[in-house]
Parts: sequence; C-alpha cells; structure tokens
Amino acid sequence: MKAINPFEVNGEINEDIYIKLVRDFGLKIIDTNLLNKIKQHTKELHPLIEYGIFFAHRDLDLILSEYENGKPFYLYTGRGPSGEMHLGHLIPFYFTKWLQEKFNVYLLIQITDDEKFLTKNLTEDQVSFYAKQNMLDILSLGFIKGKTFFILDSRNAKILYNLAIKFSKHVTFSQVRSTFGMNESDNIGKIFFPSIQAVPSFILSYLLNKPINCLIPYAIDQDDYFRLTRDVLPKLGYPKPASIVSKFLPSLIGEGKMSSSKKDTSIYLNDSEAEVRKKIFSAFSGGRDTKEEQIKYGADLSKDVPFQIYRILEEDREKVEKVKEEYSSGKMLSGEMKEITYRKVIQFLDELKERREKIKDEIEEYMFDEEKIKKMLLI
Amino acid sequence: MKAINPFEVNGEINEDIYIKLVRDFGLKIIDTNLLNKIKQHTKELHPLIEYGIFFAHRDLDLILSEYENGKPFYLYTGRGPSGEMHLGHLIPFYFTKWLQEKFNVYLLIQITDDEKFLTKNLTEDQVSFYAKQNMLDILSLGFIKGKTFFILDSRNAKILYNLAIKFSKHVTFSQVRSTFGMNESDNIGKIFFPSIQAVPSFILSYLLNKPINCLIPYAIDQDDYFRLTRDVLPKLGYPKPASIVSKFLPSLIGEGKMSSSKKDTSIYLNDSEAEVRKKIFSAFSGGRDTKEEQIKYGADLSKDVPFQIYRILEEDREKVEKVKEEYSSGKMLSGEMKEITYRKVIQFLDELKERREKIKDEIEEYMFDEEKIKKMLLI
Repeated sequence: MKAINPFEVNGEINEDIYIKLVRDFGLKIIDTNLLNKIKQHTKELHPLIEYGIFFAHRDLDLILSEYENGKPFYLYTGRGPSGEMHLGHLIPFYFTKWLQEKFNVYLLIQITDDEKFLTKNLTEDQVSFYAKQNMLDILSLGFIKGKTFFILDSRNAKILYNLAIKFSKHVTFSQVRSTFGMNESDNIGKIFFPSIQAVPSFILSYLLNKPINCLIPYAIDQDDYFRLTRDVLPKLGYPKPASIVSKFLPSLIGEGKMSSSKKDTSIYLNDSEAEVRKKIFSAFSGGRDTKEEQIKYGADLSKDVPFQIYRILEEDREKVEKVKEEYSSGKMLSGEMKEITYRKVIQFLDELKERREKIKDEIEEYMFDEEKIKKMLLI
Repeated sequence: MKAINPFEVNGEINEDIYIKLVRDFGLKIIDTNLLNKIKQHTKELHPLIEYGIFFAHRDLDLILSEYENGKPFYLYTGRGPSGEMHLGHLIPFYFTKWLQEKFNVYLLIQITDDEKFLTKNLTEDQVSFYAKQNMLDILSLGFIKGKTFFILDSRNAKILYNLAIKFSKHVTFSQVRSTFGMNESDNIGKIFFPSIQAVPSFILSYLLNKPINCLIPYAIDQDDYFRLTRDVLPKLGYPKPASIVSKFLPSLIGEGKMSSSKKDTSIYLNDSEAEVRKKIFSAFSGGRDTKEEQIKYGADLSKDVPFQIYRILEEDREKVEKVKEEYSSGKMLSGEMKEITYRKVIQFLDELKERREKIKDEIEEYMFDEEKIKKMLLI
C-alpha cells in the first residue's frame, strides 16, 4: 500500500504516483505558460523548476499577477528538527533561496521542535540540539539577512499558540483524522499541532493587519497541512496561501524518498569525502552495463541518480548541457559521471561549511520576533 | 441523565449525587481527623469547610503533614472568563483566600481565556473583556499581594504551551474522550486544552527545578482535569497535586448549580440592591408556609437558601449561631431571615466594590511572570 502524508512515505515513488497525487490533492502542474510568467521575473529558471522537481502549485499564477500589480508576497517553509540534515532536506531550501533572491521577498522558516518532540522518540534536549544545528545548516545556503527569519516553535510559542487557537476553533478531530490519518491513540499535542504549522501562513497578515500573500515551497508529503490551512484561513479573514510543490529528491539508490531513515543512501552535510564518494559511486546509474554498450547506446539520464544530483548543483548551465550531451550519447562513461558529481557535491558541501562557520555567531539576527518584524515591514 | 463534568452540570444535585461522585472520582471525604489537623494551623474553620461545602479531597492530609515538616505548598485555582461573575463563582476564591492567609502561601490563579474562546460562542475581544473584569472581581476579595499571581493563558502562552507539550505527549484522544466526554466533532484546540489547564499544577516545580507541592481548591465539576493531571505528572517527574473539592453553591432556587446560565437565580457582583433584594426574597425558603406553623415547628435550615448564604458570608460566628437558633426554633420568621441575608450580601458586595476600586490600577503587579516568580521563590 502506498502512503504519502507528513508522517509516512512508503512504496516506490514514480511519475504515475505524482500524477495521481496532483489529481487527488487538487494541485496544478506548472505548465509552460506559468514557467514563462516566472521567467519574466527571474530571467532564467532554477534547475529544480526547469527539470520539474518543483512541478506543481496552487495559486502561484495568482500571486505572481498580484506581485506584478505591486502586491508583495512572502515565502514560508519549514523543517522538523528530528536529526541531521541531508541533501534531500536542503533541496526545498536551496530552491527557496533562489525564489527569495529573484523576487527580493521576506522568508519565514518554521522550525517545528514541538512537533518532533511530540511525534518522535526524542527528548527536548535532543530536539533542541538538532534545531540549532539544522538552522545553521539552512543558513549556510546563504539567505538574505534582514529578510529571513526562523520561527522556532518553542521560542515563539506565545504568538504561535495564540494564533493557533483561532485556527483550531475551525478544525475538528474528524478533520485531522481524515486529513492526516491520525487516530484515537495519537497524543493530543500531535492532534493540535496542525494549528501551529498553519500560523506562519497568516502571521504577517495578522501582525500588519492587512492581507499579505504567502507562497509556500514544500515537498508533496506536506500537502495535507496546507490544504487544511487553505480551507480554514478564509474563515479567519486571511488570504489562502499559495503553494509550489516538489517531488522527493531521488535517493541515491534511485527509488523512494531520500530519507533520514535510510542513513546509507543519503548524503549528509557532515559526511566525510570518503563517505560521499562511496555513496555516489554506489548510486543507481543510468549508464549501460558494459563500456561497449555505453558507447553504443549512451546513458539513460532519467534513471541516472548522479546526473540528476549534478544538474541540480551545477550552476553553470552550459557545463550541464555539455555533460548531458556527452553522457547520453555515450561519449562519457558512468564512472566519469560519478566522478564529476562527486566533485560537485564536495564543492557544494565545502561552500556550505565555509558559510556555516561565518554565520554561526549571527544566528540571533535571524530569529523571528514580532516587534522586530512589525517595524521592518511597516517601513 | 445526570452529567457532571467541566462542560455540563445537569439534573438535580443532592447529597446522594455527591456521595456517588466521591466514590466514582476516587476522592476522600474530609473527616473529623482531617478537620482537626487543619484546625491546628488555622485555629478556627472557615464556614465553607465547617458546613461541608468544601467536603472532599485528595492528599490534603499528606500535604499538611509535609507542610508540618517544613515543606511548603502553593495553591492553584482558576476561572474561565465567559461572563460576569456571580456569588457562586466567587465561593472557591473566597475559601482559597482563607487558605492562603492561614498558611501564608503562594497562589496561582489561571484565567483560561483560550478555553472560553474555544468552547463558547465568544469573540476574543469578549473573552478578553471578561478576563479583565473577572480578575478585578477576584482580586476584590483581597488576596495577599506579592504572593498571588494570575496566569492569563493568552499572556503566558509561551511557558504554558511549552510545558503543555510535555504533558500532552502522555495523553491520547481516547483518554480525553473517556475523561471529558469529548468527541470527534470537538475542535482540536479544545482537545488539546486539558494540557494547558494541567500546567499550573507543576509550573513552580518546573521553574525552581525541585518538587513543590500544589493544592487545588475547585468545584467538583472540574475533577476530571485533575484526575488526569495526577495520572500524568509522575511520568514527568513532578508531584501529583492535592485537591480540596467543593459542592456547588446552592442556587437561589434551591436546586442545581448557581449557574451563569440562570441569570435570574444567581446574584451577580454588579446587581443593583433592588435586584439582590428581589432575588433573595424569591429564593427557596426553609421556613414554614404560615406564620403559625413557623412559630410552632421552626425553619428547615438544610433547605433554606437565604440562611445558607448568610452563614457563609457572616464572619461573626456567634451571630450565625444566634440566627440559627432563633430561625430553626421558630422565633425568627423567614421574612426576617431574608432581610438579614439581604443586608449581609449587600455589605459583602459593597466591600468588594470598594476594594475593586482600590485595586484596579495595581492589576499588573498580580500578573504571572516567570522571571519575577523565580526570583521571589528563590529568596
């Protein structure tokens, strides 16, 4: 049985499943028209959207039209700090950073330490440790300072709880049962939690006392939360948030989600070079079984995990095109492809580490604070 | 069908029901031994305990023994601000004030504005208005300044939510369904709320990082909350709170709870003298039908609502004894009894109004604040 929801991702993930999810969840595929509309603002497209990893949306067209008419939006995304972060976790943030820069907008990042304490076998201290580490990892991607703020649930609990109360009045146990598959043995903190996750979608509209559009980039397993949010917010007088939704990053073994529960098949930000090398070289390849066949037929890029990682991380699009051409035509062998990807990943991780070191004493400036935010946004 | 829980009090309330509740809830009756133990500290007994309105408990004996051995306790009680307060609402506070003075202890009063917003058809502004009014009404009884603090849920939401999370991890939907009769159509804020109401039972132990005993005076319809609290707190390493439990104050019509849903049969703190007079004179009397019969048989005090109100409010016990003797023997007529009660109630309400006026600019000093409390209690 397939299950895709915030608590579970089971079974093989393939294109058919994404099509079905888009239909079931009432999402829209990002089509050429919308890509062109985006391009008018961003000039070029980020590989994650160009290659269809961010592939679906709700009201993105609407939010862009309003943006064109002078109505700003802000971005909201999040992270549940239940462990160290791997490349798959960083993907939505990597893309979000691009969106923030291209549109020059505010970004709220919710760190749901309460949720992870409630739903995992973790102590408060463990969750608190991961929250701090994860925030540094995220910041090491390089978001705009002064426009990027972490809502850390335990730290911002006052405003979160007070706004979550408004939200929760419109959501019954039946609804969270049918939406999230919760049941009667779930703890009441977990049952309440969707209200907390909804808050960043309307917190700026609340603080500034006027409707402000919100765009949420997220992986498709989180869609339940935001469908619920969209149902409720109009009842509170706030605009429905728009979504831009990604598939899962292909795991290194070529199927399923790159998950923190598959330690050996995910590249962690603190993996050694040897570990990264080992993982990439044992990743599922689209290259042919023998050198002769590869030269004759070329690689099947759609199945080649190293290539898929490479094309996301390589910013020089001409290089990507060249590799693509050579590898798919058989001029490049799969070992070479892996070597190129390995070097790119190491370079990417090194850059993160360097920025992380610089940023680690500045984290306080990235923490959400109502008064600070109000002053900034009122200017 | 009888229902006694925090959301419902139905049917006629009589002694049989109280006995059944004590048994069902696992309470203990406050017996002569315990009364004597209390008296060793308080010299005399407050009428509310002497006359058996506060009639049951859990671990009160234990907390007193530990108190005698130098281990302090604090009091915790609360109010849901869903409307104006009437005399029946003030009773637990009136008794709590006496306990605070006799034992010279800290008192936390939780004002559950979140709960009333979630469970009643009230706006935030309405709940916020009642919260302020109710706090002033409560303070007008005259609690010890510097030892009495309101935990206002919306204001103290940060620490409440963070501690409620710990509590909620140990409570499932099944449990709140069986404990409170909640169902699947209840909103998820209401479902989570028992965690918030549990927090003041262990907040001082948490803040000072050592076990501090807590004694909770409350009316019996709130017992569900505290049975649940007692189940969970040991799992968090905190002591179980002790309880001292009251019956409902007899309503002016002589049966059921003096409820805010029975506007005409409850004496409100802001009732005019004419209204108070009208209500007391139309209250259920234990006097006989005719003057002759009254003189011959005397009044049935157990059914006489004016007398029962009088004996709670009259601090001069000799006067109470005299009235009791004269009224029960038939020397006093029911009209006179009503007149005496009316004057006592007016005097009581006037004193409240006077103190309310004095205290209304000092309310900030009574608001709970973690840092303030920590400093006070560490001294």
